[in-house]
Formats: sequence, structure tokens, C-alpha cells
Amino acid sequence: MTVTFLEDGHAASPTGWVAATAQCGIKYKGRDDLALLVSAEPCSAAAIFTTNKVKAAPVRYDMELVRRSPASLRAVVINAGNANACTGPDGDAAALAMAQAVESALALPADSVFVMSTGTIGVPMPIAKVLNGIAAAATTLAPNHGIAVARAIMTTDTRPKYCAARVVLPSGHTITIGGMTKGAGMIHPNMATLLATVTSDVAVNPACLDVALRAAANLSFNSISIDGDTSTNDTLLVLANGTANNPQIEDLASPDGQAFLEGLTAVCQHLAKAVVRDGEGATRFVTITVRGATDNADAKQAAMTIAKSPLVKTALYGADPNWGRVLCALGYSGAEIDPDKVLLSFGGMRVLEGGMPLPFDEKTASDLLNVPEITIDADLGLGDGIATVWTCDFSENYIKINAEYRT
Amino acid sequence: MTVTFLEDGHAASPTGWVAATAQCGIKYKGRDDLALLVSAEPCSAAAIFTTNKVKAAPVRYDMELVRRSPASLRAVVINAGNANACTGPDGDAAALAMAQAVESALALPADSVFVMSTGTIGVPMPIAKVLNGIAAAATTLAPNHGIAVARAIMTTDTRPKYCAARVVLPSGHTITIGGMTKGAGMIHPNMATLLATVTSDVAVNPACLDVALRAAANLSFNSISIDGDTSTNDTLLVLANGTANNPQIEDLASPDGQAFLEGLTAVCQHLAKAVVRDGEGATRFVTITVRGATDNADAKQAAMTIAKSPLVKTALYGADPNWGRVLCALGYSGAEIDPDKVLLSFGGMRVLEGGMPLPFDEKTASDLLNVPEITIDADLGLGDGIATVWTCDFSENYIKINAEYRT
Repeated sequence: MTVTFLEDGHAASPTGWVAATAQCGIKYKGRDDLALLVSAEPCSAAAIFTTNKVKAAPVRYDMELVRRSPASLRAVVINAGNANACTGPDGDAAALAMAQAVESALALPADSVFVMSTGTIGVPMPIAKVLNGIAAAATTLAPNHGIAVARAIMTTDTRPKYCAARVVLPSGHTITIGGMTKGAGMIHPNMATLLATVTSDVAVNPACLDVALRAAANLSFNSISIDGDTSTNDTLLVLANGTANNPQIEDLASPDGQAFLEGLTAVCQHLAKAVVRDGEGATRFVTITVRGATDNADAKQAAMTIAKSPLVKTALYGADPNWGRVLCALGYSGAEIDPDKVLLSFGGMRVLEGGMPLPFDEKTASDLLNVPEITIDADLGLGDGIATVWTCDFSENYIKINAEYRT
Repeated sequence: MTVTFLEDGHAASPTGWVAATAQCGIKYKGRDDLALLVSAEPCSAAAIFTTNKVKAAPVRYDMELVRRSPASLRAVVINAGNANACTGPDGDAAALAMAQAVESALALPADSVFVMSTGTIGVPMPIAKVLNGIAAAATTLAPNHGIAVARAIMTTDTRPKYCAARVVLPSGHTITIGGMTKGAGMIHPNMATLLATVTSDVAVNPACLDVALRAAANLSFNSISIDGDTSTNDTLLVLANGTANNPQIEDLASPDGQAFLEGLTAVCQHLAKAVVRDGEGATRFVTITVRGATDNADAKQAAMTIAKSPLVKTALYGADPNWGRVLCALGYSGAEIDPDKVLLSFGGMRVLEGGMPLPFDEKTASDLLNVPEITIDADLGLGDGIATVWTCDFSENYIKINAEYRT
């Protein structure tokens, strides 16, 4: 294993990275709500954006930016409390103003700053407050603010989410990959209401970084589900500044490329799982593995359908090994299944085999599930396809939070 | 308008129909749990079954039956408390035994009885109890038991669901269409955990009845959503015994065919809406209309995506005119949309136009939505496609019911 997680590692752990926060007062009182991450050198960049047809102003800005400047990004600025979505031409101007304020304050070239926003939709961005915050943050950049930035981007999150890992490349160089994310509700494949920034000091060209990010996202942020809704602002960004001085990775199939991909995937998985653990009202973290599918895509479709089912999620909240609801979800998932070949386990205990339930003690089963971390394993008995996804249960608190919170 | 609903009409309201119930003690204590509906004459039959790949024994039995005997059905027997699903070969034998017990008790020919089951999955059917119930019910058949049968098929339903309507055909004959249904959780397009039986005295050939049923279902049972899950047992059956003595309908495009279709659709809509009104934990009934879509299919896809969104449904529970969540759902629905052309109204109040929110008073809006019946209207501004669907809100009680109830 070449990947080692750092204790208290964060997005400013890789070399050449500094961070800062500020209190703009956009929506939250008495806490920082603006985050700035800055690299000492130009970065290779890759990003994945929401597939929602309604895209926030910063998403539209960034999509164009990363297309135009994939090798010269320097910083990312993120605010919490206002999503700058459904805000019309003023919203586009606000996103541009945020980028330009960072460029101006830090004497960076044009088109070098990525912008993210999260919070309420359809409210004009209080841009003066945000620009004041950017000016303040620009004066306090330091490597030890990597946890503070993870805290500043929170909305309904209950805790900051960050990590960093070290990878020893086969070529001998050591690289570091850090990251932070915010999530909570509306989490689903394709980055729903999720902002994630991954930083690194690896030297890698943008094309290779893009392929690596898509592969890592497929096994992490696109393998989690909280409530199946997707949002206007979701963005996963990776920036790599090359200060580790490894021979630049230009082929992901090379030994160094594979080691980097492994590290990137590990960091993305750590962050994605942190999002699920902090799902709105969640009381249990659920790992669902489907194997024996006709192929990996079918396995993932089946696993995600289980992960999204409100009936499965409420049963898990009730510590109920309700194999019937899981089998039903498999049945309508669209994946190839033969009910007579399905084997199902909850927490390692077999509950269904050959389409029929096995006898089990209800009390033992309920005790087995009445824990914070649960596994569901399904073997479809058809082929070699396998996929693992992560989700959480559905509690009364999910309803309370979402009946009261104005997105 | 040629369709008139009868006061307290039910599945035994059409001529030539009788009903009976019995208390088998399958799962529920102190209530009837078996329903029998019998026609004096052979019926044309059509049915729509669950699309779930996991199908209960009675569904497998009925699919074959309706293929083999589409013009000679005489009765339907339904039990509540045990779904006879995931019960292996014994389950198939139990479904057959239920049909044969009815045929034997009433001296009906072979292959003339349709079987439905609803309740817990994976528990062997207590067939001796059920056969005793069938024997008892067969001795009490009467036209005035049409409400009792609707009550006997309930599971987590809080009230029976039934109706009947009279249609004066252009040819001068009067026909009656009755029906009953049970629903509650797991309601979604394609008949999820939903049993519905529609009866009539109209004379119509089986091929024409099949086309009519599919058209009516598309505008009723396939236009509702409660939690998006689907089940193993869902069945919508229509039986028409011809005792109204109208000239047999053999062309749905004929004036009589159109009038019958209108009546069948009205009865199916009434029953489907009753299912939504009784959704698990539901506090609001929501009518969602999408117009201005590129076509009707796109409109329906957009409307169903809104109807299924947990975030929209929790916002409605909180009486929150959360246009952002509705717009997001439109954005990921897969339907063609241009955010800048979308117009959204809650309860008739415009909240979004041209992709941007309109000013409205929060208190007024919340009062407008804090009622049992809500409308959401979206105009996509692209074409002539239109669709209406029905759903309910998501309350804490939905979680409670489903965390505790073993399907």
C-alpha cells in the first residue's frame, strides 16, 4: 500500500498551498463563511460539475474557466450562505467579481481563480460583503488554515470534512493529496449540492488529471446517495501545482500514474464517505456491495437503487433487516436479476438465499443492525460485476431539517 | 359530461356483481381480511401487473390466467396480511388453491378466478385459514357488500377506497363502472404495492378493454407517486360482464368506446387519487401540472420527478413554497428545459418567472400552502406538452410508519 493518510491532514497539507477564511456575514452570524485556497505555483486543473440543467452562476463561470485555463489556475474562493443560483446577469457579474477580487488582492493573472458558492438559491449575492471578506482573507493566508477553510464552507453540515494522504510514487518521489468537502442534503451521483476541492503538489498534465478525476469520482462521489436530489451548484475540483517535483505524470497507466490515481481515489472516497456520515438526520452509515452482477455497471445500478430507496432507508433507521424491501429494490432497479439466485446478507448475516428467506432470530438481527455502521451485501449469482456504494438511513430528523430549511 | 359518480358507489354497484368478506386471521385480528367479488356472467378481462422483476406467486398465476382466459373470468379473490411473495413452490400452490377453492365453492369453471394477495413478504401463506375464509365468504355473497370488500383488503391504509360511476353511452344504454383499491406506501408508476379491481356491466371485447385499461392507467395509477418504491404484487384488474346489454364495444374510437374510456379513466383517477390522499403519513394532497413541455411524455417525466423529490415533498410538509427545489428537480428530470423560460406557481401564486424568483410575502405564501390540498404549476415555455400527476408530502410519520412496519 503506497497511500498513507496524515493525522489531521487537510487541503493545505500538500506543499505550496496556503489557506485563509473570513467572516462576510452573508447569512450566518458569528462564523467564517468565506474560504480561500491559494497555490504558490500555477496548477493543472480538472473539474466535474452538476448535471442539473439549472446551473448556478459560479458553475457557468468555472466551466468556461477550466476549459480555457486548465494549466494555470492559482486559487479557489468559496462562500457559504448564498448559492448565487437563479440570480440572473447580476449573479454572473458577482461570480466574476469574486474571481477578480482574488486576482487583484494577490496580484494573480486573469483567469486564474475558481469560484464556488453554496447556500440559498434565488437571493441576490451581497457582493460588497463578499468582496470585503476576500480582501480580509487575502492578508491571512497560511498553511495552517486548512481546517478552518473546511469549516467556513459548511451549510447544514454538522462538522467539517477534510483529509490528506501521502503517496510514495514508484519513481521515488513523495506527493501529497489533500481535500475538503461540504455536503449534507441533496447528495446523489453527479455531485449534488456538494462542493469538493482536492489539492495536490503532484506534477501531472491536465488531460491526465481529468481522466484520473473522473475515475476517482466514479468510485467515490458518484457512489454515494443521501436523498436522490441533485442541485445547481455541485462541483468537484482538483488542482495540482507540481511542487513535489516528480517527473510529470502524462500517462495514467504508468506506475506513477497508477499510484497517483490510487491516492486520489482514496482521498475522494474518504471525503465522499464523510459526506454520507453527515447526511441530514442520518443515524447509520450503510455500505452496500452488490456482486455477481452481469457487469460492474449493472452492479452499481442495483446498489444505487437500494441506496436510494426510502423504504430501505427507513427500515435501516428502524434496525429492521427488511430483505423484502432490498429484494424489491433490486427487482425494479433495471439491473439484470434472477430472484431465485439472489443471496442477501445484513451485517454479515444471511437472510435470503435462492429468492427465499432464511430463518433468523429477529432480536439477534435487530441488535446486529442497531449500530452506527451497517453493511448490506447482495450476490446476484449471475456474473463478475461488483460495485460498492455508501448511503445513510432516513430518520425523522431528515424530514424536520428539510421541512424547515430554505434551500 | 356523460360520467356521473354514484353516492357510496362501489365495486358491486354494476349489475350482475356480488361481494362477500371473511375473517381468516392471516395477520390482523378482529377484522375481515378476505374479499370475494363474483360476476353472474363470464367477463372480459384485462390487467396490468407490477414491472418489478420479483413477482409474487398470485401475480405469476394471474399473468398466465388472463392470457389464457381473457373472456371467461368470473371472480376475484383477495387476501390481506400475507403477500404470498418469495414463498417458492408452496406459494404457487397456495395461489392455485385459492382460485380452485372459489371455483369449487361456487361451481365455476376452471381458470375463471383471479387471485390477489397483499401484506408481508416471505412468510408462508397460512392456506388452511384462507380456504376456510373462502368457504365462509362463498355463502354470503350479496350486492350490498361492496364497501366491506374494500375494507377487507386494507393493510396500512387508514380508510377503504371505492367508487362507482354511471355512463350514458351515445348508443343510449347506461353502463356502470365500479372499483376498489388499496395502497399506502410504495406507490409509484406501474402499480407499486397497489391492488385495484375495476368492475363493470359494460359489454366490451377483451382486446378493446386492454387498450382502454392501459390508457386509463396512464392517466391515473401511473400518474401518482408516494415514495418511488415499487413492489412484488401490484395489480390493476378490470372485469366487464356485459349485463348492461349495450352493443358490444369493439372499437375504442367509436362514440360508445370513447364514452366508456372516459368513465373508466374517471373511476381509475378517483381510486388513484384516493391512494395518494391516504399515503403513509401524508398531510397534504398535491396536484402537479407541467405544461409547455416539448411533448406530453416530457411533461409527465418532469412532473413525476417533482412528485418523487424528497426535498420537494419535505418542503411541502413545511408549507414552504420552495421553488428552488422544484426548479432543481426540473433540472435533473431529464426533460427538455430552459431555466430562463420556466414559470412556477404554488397554489396559483407565481413565484418564479424567467428563471428568477418573483418577490412574494413569505407569510402569505406559507398560509396559502398550509392547507390539505396544494397545486404546483410549471410552465416550461417550450411547447404544447402537458401532464398532471398527484403526490403527497413527506412527514415524520412516513418515517415512523416505515421504520416500524415489516413489509
